Amino acid sequence: MKVTVVAGNPKAGSRTLDAGKLVASAVTGSTADSVVDVIELGPGLLGWGDDTVVQAVETVADSDLVVFASPTFKATYTGVLKLFLDQFATGEGLRDVVAVPVMLGAGPAHALAPELLLKPVLVELGATAPAPGLYLADTTYTTDSRIAEYVERWGSVLVAAVTARTGF
Amino acid sequence: MKVTVVAGNPKAGSRTLDAGKLVASAVTGSTADSVVDVIELGPGLLGWGDDTVVQAVETVADSDLVVFASPTFKATYTGVLKLFLDQFATGEGLRDVVAVPVMLGAGPAHALAPELLLKPVLVELGATAPAPGLYLADTTYTTDSRIAEYVERWGSVLVAAVTARTGF
Amino acid sequence: MKVTVVAGNPKAGSRTLDAGKLVASAVTGSTADSVVDVIELGPGLLGWGDDTVVQAVETVADSDLVVFASPTFKATYTGVLKLFLDQFATGEGLRDVVAVPVMLGAGPAHALAPELLLKPVLVELGATAPAPGLYLADTTYTTDSRIAEYVERWGSVLVAAVTARTGF
Amino acid sequence: MKVTVVAGNPKAGSRTLDAGKLVASAVTGSTADSVVDVIELGPGLLGWGDDTVVQAVETVADSDLVVFASPTFKATYTGVLKLFLDQFATGEGLRDVVAVPVMLGAGPAHALAPELLLKPVLVELGATAPAPGLYLADTTYTTDSRIAEYVERWGSVLVAAVTARTGF
Repeated sequence: MKVTVVAGNPKAGSRTLDAGKLVASAVTGSTADSVVDVIELGPGLLGWGDDTVVQAVETVADSDLVVFASPTFKATYTGVLKLFLDQFATGEGLRDVVAVPVMLGAGPAHALAPELLLKPVLVELGATAPAPGLYLADTTYTTDSRIAEYVERWGSVLVAAVTARTGF
Repeated sequence: MKVTVVAGNPKAGSRTLDAGKLVASAVTGSTADSVVDVIELGPGLLGWGDDTVVQAVETVADSDLVVFASPTFKATYTGVLKLFLDQFATGEGLRDVVAVPVMLGAGPAHALAPELLLKPVLVELGATAPAPGLYLADTTYTTDSRIAEYVERWGSVLVAAVTARTGF
Repeated sequence: MKVTVVAGNPKAGSRTLDAGKLVASAVTGSTADSVVDVIELGPGLLGWGDDTVVQAVETVADSDLVVFASPTFKATYTGVLKLFLDQFATGEGLRDVVAVPVMLGAGPAHALAPELLLKPVLVELGATAPAPGLYLADTTYTTDSRIAEYVERWGSVLVAAVTARTGF
Repeated sequence: MKVTVVAGNPKAGSRTLDAGKLVASAVTGSTADSVVDVIELGPGLLGWGDDTVVQAVETVADSDLVVFASPTFKATYTGVLKLFLDQFATGEGLRDVVAVPVMLGAGPAHALAPELLLKPVLVELGATAPAPGLYLADTTYTTDSRIAEYVERWGSVLVAAVTARTGF
């Protein structure tokens, strides 16, 4: 199973990325194969056809399971993440991907955002997203039990969705 | 595989119900085992604990695959359907159910509603909803190719989600 | 200025109703002129044309400012409230109304629901909704400062929207 | 009244910008005072504190009425527009602004997006958004009657919201 983490934080090497990796490894039991720290793709994100961006899109599209992680900006996912998602083809770009929408926020007020706002974009790109959007507290996700509870409840559903398609 | 259709139309025996049955049989290849035409449950929907309503809730909760179908009222699902969904326990009521959100409308303007509005309620109840919300034209769903295309693309994903859980 | 409070709680005389009244009086400085405790309208809500329901719809439609208050059920407004809203004509039913969407919940996790989910239904009915949806904690709304802060920030905007239309 | 149009299209000089200008002049009766064609702000959008970006943010924040226009990408507004909106302070950045959410799309299927998805971001930034989100057909907005109908119904509401605050 090929697993990728996409982090849409304007700062490279963010807690968003770290949390995405934790979710990926909690679901699959091993480290993610690839990481796309979107901001590191640079100004090519603002246009179409940049080689580095195209390669990152292909890495994601060729993955079996992808964790899409974003901080909460203005009660929704970031512009940085959406810039990257805008590079995928509608209905096709994530056709072979099981997607996990994850958002981190300072407090619980935006907990509905991953399910109501981030997941529908991934679905529009063709992803299979069988588990609820996951919202994490950005200061306690390493110590609270939220990721563990999510994986306990939804991990097998996510893995089964990959297995059904790939035969892994 | 136990399959149920829930129709949330204020009129009994509606096209909503008919469309829900068509989706269910297109996904599974056979007629739905049970039907809940919500409006026929009557005034017990307005309170808690009514025997007929409780029985309908159990029928749905015990199903493997449930099509939830609603007409589009005020750009979203109906109050009648939500009344019924309010009878289920949060996070638990649809825990063992693979859910398919379906809405019918007079024109395409509300096509985002099943994904953005109906699916999140089903997910909140614990359902696994691995396929996009399906929006149908209420005058042409029997003759257009929308249900067929949806099942071609998502039918195996839905069946696999049931199989993964039940071993069917 | 004619002010009405609509409460969509399956229990009559609920905290939802109380909170709606508090918001209305905080915005306008006086007690609401009318109250629609939706559940008291009874089984006529499940059909069309019931006299009591029609009268309640007219009361709301003839108001200048209406607070629509709902508890949070399944991460959104109640079926009881939506049943009542389904009785209004699309684009017209709240054409002369300035609307305030209010939801109460047990914790902050659903704080986005009034803005993302309840307000769009009111807008679809033709209401002017110039202020954000308001989310209240159902155990502390009488003692915390949430309503006061909301009215401090948005009260004049709401009153101005009424004034602009009516000349009050 | 100071009026600004913000266009969030990855292509400069787009129909999105043109449509935004048409909406602004239809509402106010005169040409917009300022235009922010977001993509022209360049790579400074990917970080914080870029002079050109800061100046554009101030132009918008100091406006009385702002039309925010976006094409529909992946069933919602663009990453380019969100990048720009992420530069504003939550609850404050658009505090003095009456905002008009506008989206253009190839067909009617995404007509709910301006109300359900774009408007809430503007509201989160503190904007007053008293009129519904406006969805335009990107091939016919210059010839169909959609803008005229919107302004007939909502133009006075928008102008009144500005007047109430500024005394213009």
